[in-house]
Amino acid sequence: MRTQVVIIGSGPSGLLLGQLLTLAGIDNLILDRASKEHILGRVRAGVLEEGTVRLMDEAQSGARMHAEGLPHEGFSLAFDGRDHRIDLSGLTGGKRVLIYGQTELTRDLMDHRQAAGALSIYEAANVTPCEFDGYAPYVTYEKDGVTHRMDCDFIAGCDGFHGVSRRSVPDRAVRAFEKIYPFGWLGILADVPPVDHELVYANHPRGFALCSMRSLSRSRYYIQCSLDEKLDDWDDQRFWDELRRRLPVHHAERVVTGPSFEKSIAPLRSFVAEPMRFNRLFLVGDAAHIVPPTGAKGLNLAASDVHYLFEGLLEHYQDRSNAGVDSYSARALARVWKAVRFSWWMTTMMHRFPDTSDFDQKIQEAELDYLTHSRAAATALAENYVGLPF
Amino acid sequence: MRTQVVIIGSGPSGLLLGQLLTLAGIDNLILDRASKEHILGRVRAGVLEEGTVRLMDEAQSGARMHAEGLPHEGFSLAFDGRDHRIDLSGLTGGKRVLIYGQTELTRDLMDHRQAAGALSIYEAANVTPCEFDGYAPYVTYEKDGVTHRMDCDFIAGCDGFHGVSRRSVPDRAVRAFEKIYPFGWLGILADVPPVDHELVYANHPRGFALCSMRSLSRSRYYIQCSLDEKLDDWDDQRFWDELRRRLPVHHAERVVTGPSFEKSIAPLRSFVAEPMRFNRLFLVGDAAHIVPPTGAKGLNLAASDVHYLFEGLLEHYQDRSNAGVDSYSARALARVWKAVRFSWWMTTMMHRFPDTSDFDQKIQEAELDYLTHSRAAATALAENYVGLPF
Repeated sequence: MRTQVVIIGSGPSGLLLGQLLTLAGIDNLILDRASKEHILGRVRAGVLEEGTVRLMDEAQSGARMHAEGLPHEGFSLAFDGRDHRIDLSGLTGGKRVLIYGQTELTRDLMDHRQAAGALSIYEAANVTPCEFDGYAPYVTYEKDGVTHRMDCDFIAGCDGFHGVSRRSVPDRAVRAFEKIYPFGWLGILADVPPVDHELVYANHPRGFALCSMRSLSRSRYYIQCSLDEKLDDWDDQRFWDELRRRLPVHHAERVVTGPSFEKSIAPLRSFVAEPMRFNRLFLVGDAAHIVPPTGAKGLNLAASDVHYLFEGLLEHYQDRSNAGVDSYSARALARVWKAVRFSWWMTTMMHRFPDTSDFDQKIQEAELDYLTHSRAAATALAENYVGLPF
Repeated sequence: MRTQVVIIGSGPSGLLLGQLLTLAGIDNLILDRASKEHILGRVRAGVLEEGTVRLMDEAQSGARMHAEGLPHEGFSLAFDGRDHRIDLSGLTGGKRVLIYGQTELTRDLMDHRQAAGALSIYEAANVTPCEFDGYAPYVTYEKDGVTHRMDCDFIAGCDGFHGVSRRSVPDRAVRAFEKIYPFGWLGILADVPPVDHELVYANHPRGFALCSMRSLSRSRYYIQCSLDEKLDDWDDQRFWDELRRRLPVHHAERVVTGPSFEKSIAPLRSFVAEPMRFNRLFLVGDAAHIVPPTGAKGLNLAASDVHYLFEGLLEHYQDRSNAGVDSYSARALARVWKAVRFSWWMTTMMHRFPDTSDFDQKIQEAELDYLTHSRAAATALAENYVGLPF
């Protein structure tokens, strides 16, 4: 069997790349070790940059996103008992973000892929990228006990941080950069209206809190927690109480509580693998880099990788030029590091660090004070939040 | 003997405050343990913000500064072998800084003080602020073996980090915030034309370097060095060689060398004491806070303290209101912390840290890349560099 591009991973980046390739007449196959249902059961982020929205439109998969997504023109930084609105649109010449759950976006892309008749193989075991350093790469996988081999021109590793793609590259060929943060996020999903019509990022002596949402009737709340916190110790009541303590009074009073239907603790990590291309194998999205969720850059960074890779593949097949493919890693990484810097900075500014010095704590407060009183500094925050240009 | 305000310290902040008070008809005495010649022999910074320039004009002491000072409308950030100009004027609506040595500014203020007939006592030993927590403060000092007592309404501690003023306050009344940086600056003064008409701040794998100047024929150069470096190990040739290694080629080729007439190693420190007022005693400038020299905020921060304190004292004597005196500490500290943050940030971005992780090093590079490609981020840098408003 033969295709042009094998895509490993049926998350948003794999599906988005697949859809763009399919629409351009480039044959591709998506392989995923998980089932479709499992993938759609994952809880993920939901703040889309305009570039990501544009890419969904380019993939002709944006109709429901536009109909159901909530455009946000600002968000709040809360500290010292007060709210400071960051006017994203006013600061960036009209740009905004769109609140739309990653799960919904994934579902849309799956539906459109199916409608386009492109093939995805789920529950594919032992997916293995092979010979990608030469001119005849292929991917092997097992399905229903039978081993298959798919020959191809290129392999796109869209299979996340723990996926096989990056692990297939010899250690000596990869340089990894990593930072582990000394805290996690305890998050819940509940079908209650969000406390505010925009997101609220709160820096409080008890720790960071984030009031986010999936829709006008589904809220996503997070609180910073220590890494040895146990989920069992956090019933809903304790979560709501702690959340309210960390918000300015006018928000705390308006938190609508209700039973959570998802609750989890996630560690925070920054990670970048360089390069993002190994001859015929490309790493895309979380397979190459992880950012802490502060600032919601993960999905959007995967989308910009897809954009650069799609451009490169299009040039390869349509213009018989490898310039775009050859520059994929450098172009993607330049934007990746800017977003990694931003996510690190926003994480550093908004969280309480267990081992911080009094001086560092004052610097954090001075930074928040400066940021909310300087149009230039607020603009720098806003342009990163809505997304730097591809 | 009695005066209205005793000023401890005849550096630029003490002299500036004294001159403003004298012009407003408020009686004041300046005491300094050092001789006039010793003070004028100190080598100090020389980049004046517009606010500092304005204050010198307000003190009617700005004529020579305007005649001889060099207005700078930008500076360069050099890294990765290239220069990136920060267009201070273009980014801030026409603001600029003035290159004028602190020693010259001190001399001008001394001359104007003398012309105005206001009294300074130099080589005053054992200067001691007394009873400043009550309504009848006074300062004792010894001159030529005789002990004197000067009664007053207020005491202004303008005597620097190591001065007696802050040390006179009980430990329990002061909260100190401090950060020591793991490197120093090795600096020289030489009568050679500067390498460029503007300042060059260089981040290089071998360490930071700064090309500064006092005039068009006197250069001030610095290189980052380890804290255990010894001056004796650095003859001029070694300094020039190391400086050139850290600059982009087009600058390195144009360094004019010559014998240095001053050479020293300075540690880098951030320090803030809170509050800055203890009833009738005020701390001003370095007596209350120290910043690393990156960004040249030290003298300018002393000037803004003087501005707030002078306004407060004027209100006290002219309007019989203590509002300005009462709010001095809070107003000064709000601006101090912003400048402390900026100096810390610029220091962190421009130096190589001995114990930095690969991740942190990449973040530094991403920050420089972002800063030199985002107008908003460059504007935030520029507005801090030219000085936030008083």
